[in-house]
Amino acid sequence: MPKTHTSESKIAFEGRARVVIEEVAPEIDNGRFPIKRVVGESVVVEADVFVDGHEKFTPVVLYRRELNKEWTEVPMAALGNDRWRATFRVTEMGRYRYTIMAWVNHFQSWQFDLTHRPDTDPDLTMVYKSGAELIKKASVNVTGREAEKLNSAARTLNGGASLDEKRRVALDDEITDLMERYTGRQQVTRYDKELTLVVDRERARFSSWYEFFPHSCQGNQHAGFRDCEARLRYAASMGFDVVYLPPIHPIGRAYRKGPNNTLTAGPEDTGSPWAIGAKAGGHKSIHPALGTIDDFRRFVGKAKEQGLEVALDVAYQCSPDHPYVKEHPEWFRRRPDGSVQYAENPPKKYQDIYPFDFESESWESLWHELKDIVEFWIGQGIRIFRVDNPHTKPFAFWEWLINDIKRQHPDVLFLAEAFTRPKVMHRLAKLGFTFSYTYFTWRNTKHELTEYFTELTKSESREYFRPHVWPNTPDILNEYLQFGGRPAFLVRHTLAATLAAGYGIYGPAFELAENRASKPGSEEYLDSEKYQPRHWDTNRPDSLKDHIARVNRIRRENPALQSDWSLRFHDIDNEKLICYSKTTDDLGDIILVVVNLDPHHRQSGWVDLPLEMLGVHAEQPYQMHDLLSDARYIWNGTRNYVELDPQLAPAHIFRLRRRVRSEQDFDYYI
Amino acid sequence: MPKTHTSESKIAFEGRARVVIEEVAPEIDNGRFPIKRVVGESVVVEADVFVDGHEKFTPVVLYRRELNKEWTEVPMAALGNDRWRATFRVTEMGRYRYTIMAWVNHFQSWQFDLTHRPDTDPDLTMVYKSGAELIKKASVNVTGREAEKLNSAARTLNGGASLDEKRRVALDDEITDLMERYTGRQQVTRYDKELTLVVDRERARFSSWYEFFPHSCQGNQHAGFRDCEARLRYAASMGFDVVYLPPIHPIGRAYRKGPNNTLTAGPEDTGSPWAIGAKAGGHKSIHPALGTIDDFRRFVGKAKEQGLEVALDVAYQCSPDHPYVKEHPEWFRRRPDGSVQYAENPPKKYQDIYPFDFESESWESLWHELKDIVEFWIGQGIRIFRVDNPHTKPFAFWEWLINDIKRQHPDVLFLAEAFTRPKVMHRLAKLGFTFSYTYFTWRNTKHELTEYFTELTKSESREYFRPHVWPNTPDILNEYLQFGGRPAFLVRHTLAATLAAGYGIYGPAFELAENRASKPGSEEYLDSEKYQPRHWDTNRPDSLKDHIARVNRIRRENPALQSDWSLRFHDIDNEKLICYSKTTDDLGDIILVVVNLDPHHRQSGWVDLPLEMLGVHAEQPYQMHDLLSDARYIWNGTRNYVELDPQLAPAHIFRLRRRVRSEQDFDYYI
Repeated sequence: MPKTHTSESKIAFEGRARVVIEEVAPEIDNGRFPIKRVVGESVVVEADVFVDGHEKFTPVVLYRRELNKEWTEVPMAALGNDRWRATFRVTEMGRYRYTIMAWVNHFQSWQFDLTHRPDTDPDLTMVYKSGAELIKKASVNVTGREAEKLNSAARTLNGGASLDEKRRVALDDEITDLMERYTGRQQVTRYDKELTLVVDRERARFSSWYEFFPHSCQGNQHAGFRDCEARLRYAASMGFDVVYLPPIHPIGRAYRKGPNNTLTAGPEDTGSPWAIGAKAGGHKSIHPALGTIDDFRRFVGKAKEQGLEVALDVAYQCSPDHPYVKEHPEWFRRRPDGSVQYAENPPKKYQDIYPFDFESESWESLWHELKDIVEFWIGQGIRIFRVDNPHTKPFAFWEWLINDIKRQHPDVLFLAEAFTRPKVMHRLAKLGFTFSYTYFTWRNTKHELTEYFTELTKSESREYFRPHVWPNTPDILNEYLQFGGRPAFLVRHTLAATLAAGYGIYGPAFELAENRASKPGSEEYLDSEKYQPRHWDTNRPDSLKDHIARVNRIRRENPALQSDWSLRFHDIDNEKLICYSKTTDDLGDIILVVVNLDPHHRQSGWVDLPLEMLGVHAEQPYQMHDLLSDARYIWNGTRNYVELDPQLAPAHIFRLRRRVRSEQDFDYYI
Repeated sequence: MPKTHTSESKIAFEGRARVVIEEVAPEIDNGRFPIKRVVGESVVVEADVFVDGHEKFTPVVLYRRELNKEWTEVPMAALGNDRWRATFRVTEMGRYRYTIMAWVNHFQSWQFDLTHRPDTDPDLTMVYKSGAELIKKASVNVTGREAEKLNSAARTLNGGASLDEKRRVALDDEITDLMERYTGRQQVTRYDKELTLVVDRERARFSSWYEFFPHSCQGNQHAGFRDCEARLRYAASMGFDVVYLPPIHPIGRAYRKGPNNTLTAGPEDTGSPWAIGAKAGGHKSIHPALGTIDDFRRFVGKAKEQGLEVALDVAYQCSPDHPYVKEHPEWFRRRPDGSVQYAENPPKKYQDIYPFDFESESWESLWHELKDIVEFWIGQGIRIFRVDNPHTKPFAFWEWLINDIKRQHPDVLFLAEAFTRPKVMHRLAKLGFTFSYTYFTWRNTKHELTEYFTELTKSESREYFRPHVWPNTPDILNEYLQFGGRPAFLVRHTLAATLAAGYGIYGPAFELAENRASKPGSEEYLDSEKYQPRHWDTNRPDSLKDHIARVNRIRRENPALQSDWSLRFHDIDNEKLICYSKTTDDLGDIILVVVNLDPHHRQSGWVDLPLEMLGVHAEQPYQMHDLLSDARYIWNGTRNYVELDPQLAPAHIFRLRRRVRSEQDFDYYI
């Protein structure tokens, strides 16, 4: 019978399915959106499961890859207050489904009742006969030794054995197990939704990005991809694993912006890479000054040799010179005089940019073409896309595009560059973006950092929103960096790289501590690379490159820093000092970070640690190994002193090493 | 096109519907269950609504009676952070539906942009032409004066008028309003669920119940309905509006229980009314000692004359003598010897009770017969049912029964007597029970009461779980009552009647302060009426009946006490004193209750009131009128002194009267 409710008195569903399943977690927006994991991670599923009366029941979690039909079952364990839990591990990229099923377990109920009956219960003989009936019924499905075991048990319960013997047989572990396996499941309740789960490769959780403008790889002249190969080696030497390039397409001439975003570009000015499209082509073409498609493929290959993956920018907008403007006039909005409506956010005007009109009658062909762009670059070996301003294009479009692409290419990752309101950012993450830029750039105090990263790592949103944190971008040079000198850059890099498993910097501006803003109160860079190539002396002695390389190596060597959910802030009695830890589940790797947020003054304080939670005995000393300086400190008890001078080193990245031998041995720490 | 997502690259939905609607509240379990209201109440609907980009949009709440097809629209107002809200009022009993709809509002976006354009914007002429186009498009749907208004506006925006004049016309209120009404709605996003709402009559929210055993209305002899008419007048004199009777059906002989639940009943012993069914009939029959069905109808009529509604007990279980046992052996579970399985919860046995087997193959006929029982009593004029132990019958059964009955009879109310685990109680409330017994009986300290009633009145569960609180029942004589003397009864009654709009007592045991338990540590009454009629001297001078009558009158006269959501606890610096207020939404009625929870000693303390929230000026004195003693106190400022002697009066029920005239007048308070 179909399991639906009907009006009036007709009963058209299985009314004997007595178990109730509700409050399933994780479940995003009633199952409308998937949760996210990477290969090798676990999913912990919980639910309220209960039945009328005091009957026992069996709840199980079911999961499968979406491509497979067959479910795997995991029994759930009781947590108390009608809450149940089971865990499973995902091993393949792509989409999974999971749900819950439960049914009344009459044999378990019978066993439970039995244990509460006194030996004087006059009904005991009858009770054992009831048990024998249940066993005989189950044994129909069994053969061989197992059948014999069950039949023998039924005979014992039915026969003249002593009450002690009957009781022993009734509660026997093997019988219990056989009954669990072979009792026909009847009146099964199945949770009314199949929940979805997207499994990505590990880089979705743990990645270190280096963004640079390829046009700047050759001094102040416009560079080509071949000139950028040294920059790849340089990025690899700092320990990054992704290099991300701003748009590499032909740049429009019309209304081209000059240096520092001036309205009048000279003939030699390069224009903004985000003003995409010219006679030489559009989103599927390469800027002639950067080279050919073959040069690009060579560049991607060179990157790979260095252990680097290339991420491209997807900016769905056109310069007035983009071939689409003539080929597909129907994709743009017209003004009353017939001209194309350029981008505006009054009083701001962007005459060099034509937005697509997603309300066009031809929206379907537009969607397909935009997806084609992504597919084209996938064809060139690209698997990571950083999406420019996704929040100014329809949500439904992104959901369709990303899911469609990932069905074909589950290894493709999308980073949402949506610096906008929280609910909009969350929606983009829910509908499919792999990771998301965050507000990290503007969170500089201890209170702000603690509150924000607690929300990112402890709330339900962590199931779908993977933070990717950036201390700077070509658009954002935060005040803290403008006025904190070199120590500010050390602080913000250390925070980014240890608070979040996914982070990136825009360089070489970052490691060279470039801090000149275009004007007071602005976060724009002076002489921004968005509008002109820049020469960077990456060998400057004050460069942060060695610090960055060291931190990236620490990240690679310590799995605790490769995921975010274990993040935990610790008390320290100085508002300028922040302290937090990350650990692996088994506490095999414990990283404790202390950062002096004040870039100007030495600060000191007492750290307060929850030793029990970190697996440390309160009475034993433990070693704190600073992986930045290689210094080792012996700490004792919960409260210990730290002092950090920003001019020397504004942070500790400790690995906590527990003592494993007694005082009879030499001191030795793992 | 159907609005569904398909796999691969086919696009089969309206991709231009850009607005997103999520996090709708109230919404119970993803819309699986309805929220509840009574006639005249409001529903406040909130949702996150937003769109890509910075376009304006219009969100509305839609609602309708389930029987009607036509929706009523209510515009939503912005609360900030992408949250929106609208309110509607329900006026009819039965089921309603509500949902949300939103669409991009191009004219509003255009107006908003306009207000941000400087007068020097070179595009202004073009911009006004765009506005004129929008207006002309809308005017197609308009006739008469309104069309003329729109056309004239379009001409102004298109023509040579001054910028000031164009701007005035563009932002004109009437134009804005006409555009809102006549612009065709395109690419509408509709929330993907229609949420449901059950509207009951007012008694679902506000009721005062008096439970009594009709067999006790005539001294120690088994009384009949005609003997109970004086008890009806007595209940009415105390101000109750519902009288609730334990089961009134024939009582079985087999395994009948004697006084104090002894296993051997004598021939004169009446047995438990919950052992339903004998030769004289079952659930649709009247116990011969109580009278005939005509006597019962006369009793219901007499109750009505006194302003009382009769509530019956629904206990779905049978004595071994119930006609069903022979007529429908398929509805009962058999033991191996062929006998019917009686109720057991080892080591407890209830040989006088046969439970129905809801896993029977004949479950459908069982369900229909059980519903027939309710319909039978509806036919006798009954509209309130108190359901015995609903948590031992399947949830799906109750959902079907209650919803089916209420579709035909929306005025029928069901009270769930489920003293069990929280999630089970909540599920029963969600699936349809009108109101629910609570843990109030076991919440006696200030901390317990504050925590529990805050949960009941402030959490999302208030949307479906209506508390009904009882200081005693025939099954529960709490320790506090056993050992606190008469003051304990005064305290518990005052708490019940002022904390909750729905409450009841089991009398005359309650008002006569009957506090003898069957044995130490038990909550059972000694000589419980469950097993024998009892004589009660309702005229005893120490009876609480006058106090009860006074409190019930206060409840009727003060709408603040007739609903629960406004409940708010206030600080008072004595753990034995509890203080809380209830108010009407307009603060026209403000009730402040202070109770001494210590039944033995005088207690005093300082109450701390949030005067601003109560609409009282901090500098002006206000009058506290104790509606119990009729004393009036002048209070000043936020902190005021109270003292309560349990031997005199353990509680104040103040009405707060604000001063309405100045000191030039005589003091006068409303």
